[in-house]
Amino acid sequence: MRYTVMMASNLKAVVRYDGGGFAGWQVQPGQRTVQGVIEHALGKIAGASIRIHASGRTDAGVHALAQVFSCTWPSDSPPERLRRSLSQMLSPEIRVDSIEEVAQEFHASYSAVSKTYVYAFTISREPDPFISRYAWALPWRIDRDRFAQMAQRLVGTHDFAGYCSSGSSAQTTERTILSAKVSDGAVISTPDSDNAWHIEFHGDGFLYKMVRNMVGTLADVARGNLPEERLLELLNGSAPYHGFTAPPQGLFLAKVFYDSPRHRT
Amino acid sequence: MRYTVMMASNLKAVVRYDGGGFAGWQVQPGQRTVQGVIEHALGKIAGASIRIHASGRTDAGVHALAQVFSCTWPSDSPPERLRRSLSQMLSPEIRVDSIEEVAQEFHASYSAVSKTYVYAFTISREPDPFISRYAWALPWRIDRDRFAQMAQRLVGTHDFAGYCSSGSSAQTTERTILSAKVSDGAVISTPDSDNAWHIEFHGDGFLYKMVRNMVGTLADVARGNLPEERLLELLNGSAPYHGFTAPPQGLFLAKVFYDSPRHRT
Repeated sequence: MRYTVMMASNLKAVVRYDGGGFAGWQVQPGQRTVQGVIEHALGKIAGASIRIHASGRTDAGVHALAQVFSCTWPSDSPPERLRRSLSQMLSPEIRVDSIEEVAQEFHASYSAVSKTYVYAFTISREPDPFISRYAWALPWRIDRDRFAQMAQRLVGTHDFAGYCSSGSSAQTTERTILSAKVSDGAVISTPDSDNAWHIEFHGDGFLYKMVRNMVGTLADVARGNLPEERLLELLNGSAPYHGFTAPPQGLFLAKVFYDSPRHRT
Repeated sequence: MRYTVMMASNLKAVVRYDGGGFAGWQVQPGQRTVQGVIEHALGKIAGASIRIHASGRTDAGVHALAQVFSCTWPSDSPPERLRRSLSQMLSPEIRVDSIEEVAQEFHASYSAVSKTYVYAFTISREPDPFISRYAWALPWRIDRDRFAQMAQRLVGTHDFAGYCSSGSSAQTTERTILSAKVSDGAVISTPDSDNAWHIEFHGDGFLYKMVRNMVGTLADVARGNLPEERLLELLNGSAPYHGFTAPPQGLFLAKVFYDSPRHRT
């Protein structure tokens, strides 16, 4: 008796998207999601149902400069051909920057070593409307230097449960923030970007809404609405977070890091 | 017997908006529209129902760099104070660039002498997702010089009924296009704008979806899908337009012109 061996490959893809028109990454019935439209397109190409696994979910309205997903692909067709086919089928809000074959044990989420998220603000009193989907128009004057300085308090290994919104499925709440850097400008090219600035968090992992909750608390402290101690109280607190959550449009998943080099099986 | 004379002023406002999150300009029940959110905010300030009149409607997803509206305002409060109050109440997707008091006979639509609309394209094979809300990612290679040249055929006074979508309430369909200029670049600052270009139509008025229908036909001809004669057939045709309508996200209402100077009553 002989078996037909079906060649299946493990793929890693890097995608960039404007999250403004999506109800987030994760498939939800009746909603247009990034995962949903990509799985739908891949399913058409494969002629079979395809499930993809992201490095992590992004919420409704959150953008990605380089989200990573992995999936088992039921053939060994050239990845670049697949990338072009997929690109053509997707709406222009999503671009597939690369697809490559990777070792079977690679998983976009479990294999991730660290990630960077960037959060953008605009400080114009009346910002240009065409930056509004890509930055948070701060309704208050805040002291940016103080914001940057206080963000350093979050750097290190802490229990971030107090910065985690309810609805999380994380099993542990200890995470390490490696750096928190404030810089000038918007994250992408927009009108009024001279009046924008952003903070980049590099960490080994982030809990549900953790970046937006940290940004919300930092902004609340930097505007003088909360005492500075609140930042540390939350680091010793428990979920769920009850403070202000910064709006989604300022947030970009910027990069996901994996151990290199990746070996082909 | 004495009467209290209520001072009412006629106001002209210039607003700029990202149309991506709105179901167009015009108030529609259960929909978020630009007119709807502005009237709601003005109503709160005035403590009375306020009706505003735009230079013309924009469709869902269409942007404005300088839409004009007029309204009767039930007091003679300083326009700049009203502008600031209104700005603070509106979401960052709309900016109120100016409000001024104008002659009673001024009406944003009836007094308009001409308008410019700009339509933007991107020609990257795989455009950056962050331009996708502000330009049409052309799915075909088109000859831009030919597009520009053919657009000149539409310049002049013509019956544009054949370029008018059904649903128009216009009483006459003769319009004059004063110019149709093609230029490099995107309309607003975006990623990938080096790979963008746009066309600016200046005309004394535009019928329902007329710009998007002209752009759709020009693109269809410039890609070789329709014969060049089709452009002129439509100029002699009757409503409604049955061809391809270019998508809304590339369209910007750029400027509305009025006779100057405007006199204060």
